[in-house]
Amino acid sequence: MTVITEANKTKASELLAQLTLDEKIGMIHAAGLFRTEGVPRLGIPSLKMDDGPMGVRAELHNDNWMPLYNTRDYVTYLPSGSALASTWSSRLARLVGEVLGEEARGRGKDVILGPSINIKRSPLCGRNFEYMSEDPQLTADMGVAYIQGVQESDVAACAKHYAANSQETDRLDVDETIGERALREIYLPAFEAAVNDGGALSLMGAYNLVNGTQCCESKELLDDILRGEWGFDGFVVSDWSAVKRTKASAEVGLDVEMSVTADFDEYFFANPLKAAIESGEVSEADVDRKVWRVLCVMDALHMLGDARADRAAGSYATVEHTRAALDVARESVVLLKNEAGLLPLDARAMRRLLVVGANADRIHSNGGGSAVIKALHEVSPLLGLNGQLGGNVEITYAPGYDAKQVTQDASWQEESLENSVDERVDDAERARELRDEAVALAREFAAAGDPVLFVGGLDHEHDLEGRDREDLRLPYGQDALIEALLDAAPNTILAFVAGSPVAMPWAERATTIVWSWYNGCEGGTALAETLLGRVNPSGHLPETFPLALEDCPAHAIGTFGPGLHVDYAEDVYVGYRHYETRGVPVLFPFGHGLSYTDFEYRDLDVRRVRDDIRVSFTVANVGAREGKAVPQVYLGLEGTGEDRPVKELRGFAKVALAAGESRQISIMLDADRALRYWSNVSGGYATAPEAAVHVGESAHDIRLFGRVAQAYL
Amino acid sequence: MTVITEANKTKASELLAQLTLDEKIGMIHAAGLFRTEGVPRLGIPSLKMDDGPMGVRAELHNDNWMPLYNTRDYVTYLPSGSALASTWSSRLARLVGEVLGEEARGRGKDVILGPSINIKRSPLCGRNFEYMSEDPQLTADMGVAYIQGVQESDVAACAKHYAANSQETDRLDVDETIGERALREIYLPAFEAAVNDGGALSLMGAYNLVNGTQCCESKELLDDILRGEWGFDGFVVSDWSAVKRTKASAEVGLDVEMSVTADFDEYFFANPLKAAIESGEVSEADVDRKVWRVLCVMDALHMLGDARADRAAGSYATVEHTRAALDVARESVVLLKNEAGLLPLDARAMRRLLVVGANADRIHSNGGGSAVIKALHEVSPLLGLNGQLGGNVEITYAPGYDAKQVTQDASWQEESLENSVDERVDDAERARELRDEAVALAREFAAAGDPVLFVGGLDHEHDLEGRDREDLRLPYGQDALIEALLDAAPNTILAFVAGSPVAMPWAERATTIVWSWYNGCEGGTALAETLLGRVNPSGHLPETFPLALEDCPAHAIGTFGPGLHVDYAEDVYVGYRHYETRGVPVLFPFGHGLSYTDFEYRDLDVRRVRDDIRVSFTVANVGAREGKAVPQVYLGLEGTGEDRPVKELRGFAKVALAAGESRQISIMLDADRALRYWSNVSGGYATAPEAAVHVGESAHDIRLFGRVAQAYL
Repeated sequence: MTVITEANKTKASELLAQLTLDEKIGMIHAAGLFRTEGVPRLGIPSLKMDDGPMGVRAELHNDNWMPLYNTRDYVTYLPSGSALASTWSSRLARLVGEVLGEEARGRGKDVILGPSINIKRSPLCGRNFEYMSEDPQLTADMGVAYIQGVQESDVAACAKHYAANSQETDRLDVDETIGERALREIYLPAFEAAVNDGGALSLMGAYNLVNGTQCCESKELLDDILRGEWGFDGFVVSDWSAVKRTKASAEVGLDVEMSVTADFDEYFFANPLKAAIESGEVSEADVDRKVWRVLCVMDALHMLGDARADRAAGSYATVEHTRAALDVARESVVLLKNEAGLLPLDARAMRRLLVVGANADRIHSNGGGSAVIKALHEVSPLLGLNGQLGGNVEITYAPGYDAKQVTQDASWQEESLENSVDERVDDAERARELRDEAVALAREFAAAGDPVLFVGGLDHEHDLEGRDREDLRLPYGQDALIEALLDAAPNTILAFVAGSPVAMPWAERATTIVWSWYNGCEGGTALAETLLGRVNPSGHLPETFPLALEDCPAHAIGTFGPGLHVDYAEDVYVGYRHYETRGVPVLFPFGHGLSYTDFEYRDLDVRRVRDDIRVSFTVANVGAREGKAVPQVYLGLEGTGEDRPVKELRGFAKVALAAGESRQISIMLDADRALRYWSNVSGGYATAPEAAVHVGESAHDIRLFGRVAQAYL
Repeated sequence: MTVITEANKTKASELLAQLTLDEKIGMIHAAGLFRTEGVPRLGIPSLKMDDGPMGVRAELHNDNWMPLYNTRDYVTYLPSGSALASTWSSRLARLVGEVLGEEARGRGKDVILGPSINIKRSPLCGRNFEYMSEDPQLTADMGVAYIQGVQESDVAACAKHYAANSQETDRLDVDETIGERALREIYLPAFEAAVNDGGALSLMGAYNLVNGTQCCESKELLDDILRGEWGFDGFVVSDWSAVKRTKASAEVGLDVEMSVTADFDEYFFANPLKAAIESGEVSEADVDRKVWRVLCVMDALHMLGDARADRAAGSYATVEHTRAALDVARESVVLLKNEAGLLPLDARAMRRLLVVGANADRIHSNGGGSAVIKALHEVSPLLGLNGQLGGNVEITYAPGYDAKQVTQDASWQEESLENSVDERVDDAERARELRDEAVALAREFAAAGDPVLFVGGLDHEHDLEGRDREDLRLPYGQDALIEALLDAAPNTILAFVAGSPVAMPWAERATTIVWSWYNGCEGGTALAETLLGRVNPSGHLPETFPLALEDCPAHAIGTFGPGLHVDYAEDVYVGYRHYETRGVPVLFPFGHGLSYTDFEYRDLDVRRVRDDIRVSFTVANVGAREGKAVPQVYLGLEGTGEDRPVKELRGFAKVALAAGESRQISIMLDADRALRYWSNVSGGYATAPEAAVHVGESAHDIRLFGRVAQAYL
């Protein structure tokens, strides 16, 4: 996929030849917190970048982090990366990209700092809510569509964070030891797809070190793999303050230095770089290459000369964008468990509804770190429920817990130590009162046969850039509250809004569990519509929900979090690759998601069609209402003589089926890619001679089984 | 029009017979700030009412005016009454009613306290932004459609304030002397239509006195006219604290007493009424009639017994409602002047845009009095412009004036007296700086050929329940700023957001003037789309913009505002009836509104078709783009032997025409109604023998002229 044309390159070369060293230097480091310097005499504008993947961040001052505007920069709050991946719909990923691109361009941006496509190595990573999945194929497919959508509006997507930014703890200094196979099969494929299939015009260099080298200084990552193997000709921008040394970053393919301070002239790529060139320590040719790449992208974005007249204008905060956010949110909610058939709720039969849980009455757009949004609006679950149910159902709301409560969570310890003993006693008393009130109400509602809904989960005090969670537990004493609710009202419906999996020690007792990620401005609407059956859930988990943290591979081997060295010793056995291969039971498997209807699978046929493996099968909607199935195709590569995961996602589809309808689905897999693996023996890519083919509704719920042999293809 | 059926009446009678006196008393006065008491043993619920005409007010505590909820009660902010009337579209009035009804029912309300259909006697009335027009026909037609829309959702509309609540000054005590003719022709027709054509299930009794009697004690208004002549069988609720005495209100058709204090048992219709009945001072039959009316409405709303299962549920804060608000807003913006053809702006040709004026960057949903809204969102003009224009146009924003500035306005005097001298000097200096900055920018933009847009007007510090404006002047020194802008940039485009007309002493010098009322959550979008030509303006003024306050009839005779007695001595000569009959020049006439295309009128034909007068004519779109015309039919009744206005609106249409398209329009006028007038001679209704027929684009811009004689009909 070529996005940068020969004409772009010629134009870039022509302009480059006319630039002074100072002008070049100005173009490759910050002249504002989110922009570089332009060269007005040659019609080269400043390059404007902005966060982030869920919407365009509020405008800040050029040289400090205070907000600049009043009403002018409200934007559409889009579903998070995890929410988007949960749709398993590349159509919707493209739609989100289109909306984000239009909004970014509408806000006058040239580069939007997304998508976030790091692999979720651990469920504790504070930034997981931005990331898509534990699986490289799902991440790649969603990321590619998203990038293509963004770039329709003459805005560069910026795939981040290259590479393996899998934890927030010590993110600036942590050195990750990652084997070549894990790098090639797990941590790099989404970036490779972003470049080669998505045509991403920019990448962001990560904070961390990989195998002893800062990502922003890595010849291997930036030159050999990205430029050499993948042929990337866009630019690489550093994460904000990820450049640590002038020469080391200048001599590799890290093109633009951004950071968090306002002393722009003192950036490594500013005066120090100029000095290094003048002293001969760094070659001006290195600078030229960087500037040329930036110019190539600028020309591709119609930022230069006469082409500006053709540039997309964009728009933001429109009704159409809200509508798109709702479309995505509706396909993102995951029905985890519905074994008593309590869902969907029948609004017409309902007189009262008890809603318990502080997350019902909370919005999330205003937190999270760089993904923070100044949302034009956000519908909370309680607003969504009340707005959808309307006036014939009396909703009683009880928070049940205090989201400000001092808990035993380590993330709160510092704060709790600062509290006086009196305050802690008051907090404990308050927590007790809230719980007792909610439980008493639940008991009363259950006795009357009226439904009880709990809406809890996490918030951006926990799903937060810069800090990982300490454990899988729900904060604010929610577990004890849930246990008490299930005692008082066994049919309590449990819904969660969160950005990462949580432990559910009460899961066996609960009949009904619904999951929503941070789902954008209409997330509360979509959750309500799902609970009420106005939307048939079709979201599927893009990551495994483990039973316990110790089951998770990174934690099983004890290499996550604090310490300046983390060994990715679990190799490629990340997520379901670990659980399925090792037979470790999980809470909910990767790919899991129920519907209000049922799907049956039959007639698997696997055969070669030109360069593809065609995996055909029939999906039948055997229930009573329209629904959307997500058939997933996993291969288990065999005959390689090396240890391999028993299942690896290679393809999927999202299929709408009317009640009673059945349809033949064909999923085409590029044969070379599908059977490709990184051989520890040869130290390079190899092709597996055969593979098991699994078709199912999750990594664990396999409905059809077949085989494919390379020889037969 | 019958909304309350015989079955409803039977049911009401059955229930009434089972009620104790205490239960009856509970049903006709407040048991909360916005509800009455129900009778649980008989399945009679509490009757829940809420403000207001532009959206359902945030939930308050039962017994105090503090907000109750966090995220749960965000609603859709709808265009104000003036904005709605400005569309001249009963289709859109019905749409607004439908949305409001759905939202009110969605929020669990039984009665929504709107529409506000008082006639705008003076442009200074603080509540004019809620009201529709100076003309009874336009008010009636819009009000009827609105009421029908609301009541589709099993919510009662409450037409208010009955009657003649035309000023806020001393509104609780002012005694208005209104001649019978003015009452019958100007102040009552919209209420008559609300009842007879709209089927309004409730009315609100006004605070003021009419001809010596409190409206809430008026046998003439409540019994003779409303119940007797019009046959109204819904209920009348007092404005909040409009009841002043027990017996006087109990013995007339004022049914439910509401007020602003929480001592509900001490309300006039609570313990005092019970005592009056027990002492024989008031008959229990009076109470029975009130309760019966409330029960009739409750049954019509499906609030009683098994009917509850059929009750509409409603919904609120939905994307669909936002979309409807935008549809209305788009047809409401009025293009007042475009004589240099500066509009629409060409976004593709624009590189920069200067926006001056604090109203560009301000939202209005959060003010105004009882019409205040907790809006899920509101798009400001600056957000609308930036969001629509997108990233290729650089918008520079300069407030130009400080909306908190201490001005000479009397409404600010109190505050200014509280300020220290230092503060006043600082404020003056700040105002000067803001003005100088904006004017310098305007000069620079004009010199470069880049457009300059001013967005000023009023806000809810001025358009405010409980307080009238002191004069027509723009506040915050805007006039001086506008003069300076026009000096610096003669092509400055002037846009206003306001709820009432303002004086425009610089109007001759300005080439381009655009007017928006408080236009709902998407008002900023609609204004931007209009300026950019994405919407062709089709709003027309629902009231005259006078040149000076002294020209306005109420002010010409000096009877408006302070003092406990106001004489409506201008009689029926309100608004354009005055200006057109007396030949008083105005700034912009009633009905005025330009388009980006031009319409021609021809072939007037006036004839009788059964009971109607059919006024037919052809409207041709002779311009280059699609647009919407608003042909208006005025009659001048003749041969009555009494002084009459030369023109009175009797009908109108809104017609979409493609470029080059022409269409025959037929406006049907009920012959009896069209020629009806109140005779000062006979003291009753009479029929004019003939009339002049004027068809035009405003009350002043008459394009076709004909006649109709009763004898020929």
